[in-house]
Amino acid sequence: MQTLNQISLAETLKARRERLSQLIDLPVILWSGRSSARNFPANTYPFRASSHFLYFAGSPLENAAIRLEQGKLTLFMDDASPASALWHGESPARTAIAHQIGADAAYPLAQLQTKVEDCATVLVQDPGTHEWQTQVLNRAIAIAPEAKGIDLALIHAIATLRMSHDVAAIAELRQAVAVSIAAHQAGMAATCTAKTEADVKAAIEQVILANNMTTAYTSIITVHGEVLHNHHYHHELQARDLLLVDAGAETASGWAADITRTWAVSGRFSPTQRAIYEVVLLAHDLCIATMKPGIEYEAIHLTAARVIAEGLVDLGILRGNPTDLVEMDAHALFFPHGIGHLLGLDVHDMEDFGDLAGYAEGRTRSDRFGLGYLRLNRPLQAGMLVTIEPGFYQVPAILNDRDRREKYGDVVNWERLAEFSDVRGIRIEDDVLITATGTEVLTVALPTNIEAIEQLISGN
Amino acid sequence: MQTLNQISLAETLKARRERLSQLIDLPVILWSGRSSARNFPANTYPFRASSHFLYFAGSPLENAAIRLEQGKLTLFMDDASPASALWHGESPARTAIAHQIGADAAYPLAQLQTKVEDCATVLVQDPGTHEWQTQVLNRAIAIAPEAKGIDLALIHAIATLRMSHDVAAIAELRQAVAVSIAAHQAGMAATCTAKTEADVKAAIEQVILANNMTTAYTSIITVHGEVLHNHHYHHELQARDLLLVDAGAETASGWAADITRTWAVSGRFSPTQRAIYEVVLLAHDLCIATMKPGIEYEAIHLTAARVIAEGLVDLGILRGNPTDLVEMDAHALFFPHGIGHLLGLDVHDMEDFGDLAGYAEGRTRSDRFGLGYLRLNRPLQAGMLVTIEPGFYQVPAILNDRDRREKYGDVVNWERLAEFSDVRGIRIEDDVLITATGTEVLTVALPTNIEAIEQLISGN
Repeated sequence: MQTLNQISLAETLKARRERLSQLIDLPVILWSGRSSARNFPANTYPFRASSHFLYFAGSPLENAAIRLEQGKLTLFMDDASPASALWHGESPARTAIAHQIGADAAYPLAQLQTKVEDCATVLVQDPGTHEWQTQVLNRAIAIAPEAKGIDLALIHAIATLRMSHDVAAIAELRQAVAVSIAAHQAGMAATCTAKTEADVKAAIEQVILANNMTTAYTSIITVHGEVLHNHHYHHELQARDLLLVDAGAETASGWAADITRTWAVSGRFSPTQRAIYEVVLLAHDLCIATMKPGIEYEAIHLTAARVIAEGLVDLGILRGNPTDLVEMDAHALFFPHGIGHLLGLDVHDMEDFGDLAGYAEGRTRSDRFGLGYLRLNRPLQAGMLVTIEPGFYQVPAILNDRDRREKYGDVVNWERLAEFSDVRGIRIEDDVLITATGTEVLTVALPTNIEAIEQLISGN
Repeated sequence: MQTLNQISLAETLKARRERLSQLIDLPVILWSGRSSARNFPANTYPFRASSHFLYFAGSPLENAAIRLEQGKLTLFMDDASPASALWHGESPARTAIAHQIGADAAYPLAQLQTKVEDCATVLVQDPGTHEWQTQVLNRAIAIAPEAKGIDLALIHAIATLRMSHDVAAIAELRQAVAVSIAAHQAGMAATCTAKTEADVKAAIEQVILANNMTTAYTSIITVHGEVLHNHHYHHELQARDLLLVDAGAETASGWAADITRTWAVSGRFSPTQRAIYEVVLLAHDLCIATMKPGIEYEAIHLTAARVIAEGLVDLGILRGNPTDLVEMDAHALFFPHGIGHLLGLDVHDMEDFGDLAGYAEGRTRSDRFGLGYLRLNRPLQAGMLVTIEPGFYQVPAILNDRDRREKYGDVVNWERLAEFSDVRGIRIEDDVLITATGTEVLTVALPTNIEAIEQLISGN
């Protein structure tokens, strides 16, 4: 397989925009965006360029725009001011950057206004740039679900392209994965001396920082795995806790990894923790084993739901026939989210397109409790990278909900469930690339089986 | 001295708003702000509440507002939705938060509109909240330099309050300082095995993360100290390099530290590095020694300029009389920034007020090369926390500038300067609290002298 070193950035970008021009016969302008102020204007959050810009420009240029038309690339950006050299050092000139990314022409931003007629675009996240887009194009730019006309055509074309990763993208994704695996390993190794969740977070993110990458999303590192998006790190680690770690790195050009592992703080899973973990792991393994081009992602989700329902019946937590339990969404009492999502330049790739990327045309979200949170509903295709992340959680907001207690009162053995009180949340998440014939699990080097994880924690 | 544990948050906040009401007889509404989207709406930057809100509300509540009037506090925020409990866990209710911060009343956000008549406010950084402020108050909210009327009166009152830190603030600042010192020590200890700037950054920020704090600003960790705001970390460390590290932690409620140290990668300063370092350190020490209430901060800046000019004359780099050299701004060829700034909830405290906080009424920025970058120009007063950060840099954009080469051609011995090519940038920065009689250097536990730094690097 070719690696990124063997193909030039300029060639990659050229191929991407040529594929774009095969999909739509429209001029396109994409903006990179600008930094967002944190507590005062000069103290900004680290700049993150728009993913659509990154896909076609390859470089996180701040305050820039590109025009794409019939395979040609035009770069718009201003050279740094002389004063900027004092504070920020010498910056590469527009012409140098244009050469590096293979642009056919390059102009100052002031020229943008004259080259935007009939251009389609995508809304950028930062409101300042959004306003600028509106001014330059002299029309409203809608968020994706409401996009119409040429902008909607562009969204569909970009979604088609970004859905299937090229060699350069996969090389970047592998780098993000490699660093994320090392980060998780460091987190496991740090657990035996860590006092708080924050200590483990620090060990994990140190690896990401040392590799000059950033986190692709706010890390979840918690002994309260039942809080699905838990962004607090103050809890002390107790020997009987499970620690759920969902953390991934992002390369300098924006490509993300997304990995979750759950491990025992003590280094030894209790029998109840082990029993539930094995159910989640079986769901994880069976999902991946059934994936290949043409298989529906929703079917993978339902496979996980069924395996979890079966496992919970076997453990005496659920009562009834697993197929019936899934049909009545009883699995979702404990596995309330989707089996995963697209992964690429965004950790939920192209989520700014709403469901226009994640859902095949004509499909919409289910209103079923057990399906409504599914972020991807398409047949799998080669080049797609998706996460597979089954889980088990005891979410008080679900399990104590009066309507649900009534609806599912008979199918849950609440007394038996109480014996699993040391299992608040487990998730196992890998990044799975769909190949021509099946899958390649990019994150396979980070073990999922209990014995190997226990060894990584104890350092043996 | 009282510590934060001995005084309750509610009492501190009450005292602050009572002092505010003594300064202005106006109702005030302050917004906390909302998260900014990174690459898609659900993937946000970590939320940072407005510093003015934090000062009076004490807690980083997202999407909240407070009303202050005659010492009374009213909280406006919505309770979390039931769906939020699934993803984010149970949140404290509005009433519980109101009790914790000592609010006299608490309402949902929908009530805000009815309680804003004649209220002054301060512009919040995120554009979405700014728009909301404008709608609720039904008038434009100007950025600080253009603020007028009641908003300007509020800015002056807040600046007066936040200029002089109370006991609770100082306790928080000490926590930020303690963690920042430990972070720098970790960075020094990591240097001997680090291969890149990013490795040192990771060691430093690991300490900040493990203490469940954030960086107060984007860390500068660079072998190219001559780039004043260098936010790249990819350079390999070479034995002859100096590493300039400007990094500080911020507590959960927003209080910041700001420390710079410069050390030799090899653990041993070269004779040229040592010579310049000693000049910068002398400037640093003499500035601090002359500080006390009533002294003009600009005079401190000029003290640093004179000491640096003298030192460079002694080293044969500058020619002439030091006083004359400072008057012609020759020091600024090598020390082009100000001696420091206010420090508090912001690393450049209240910089969102433009110079309304930093400059005494009636004073404006100088257009002199050697004074124009000074961020603070007021007499010192007890309770003020300022940085003292003299430096020496060889900035190509300055030293190669044709006009400056011409103007300063005779006062610089360029051949002698060439012998100091291994000194690209040195800065030594401490956080200095003005007391009733002099100063307390909050950062004093982190040594500035070469011998102690060399020991920290070598681990002896």
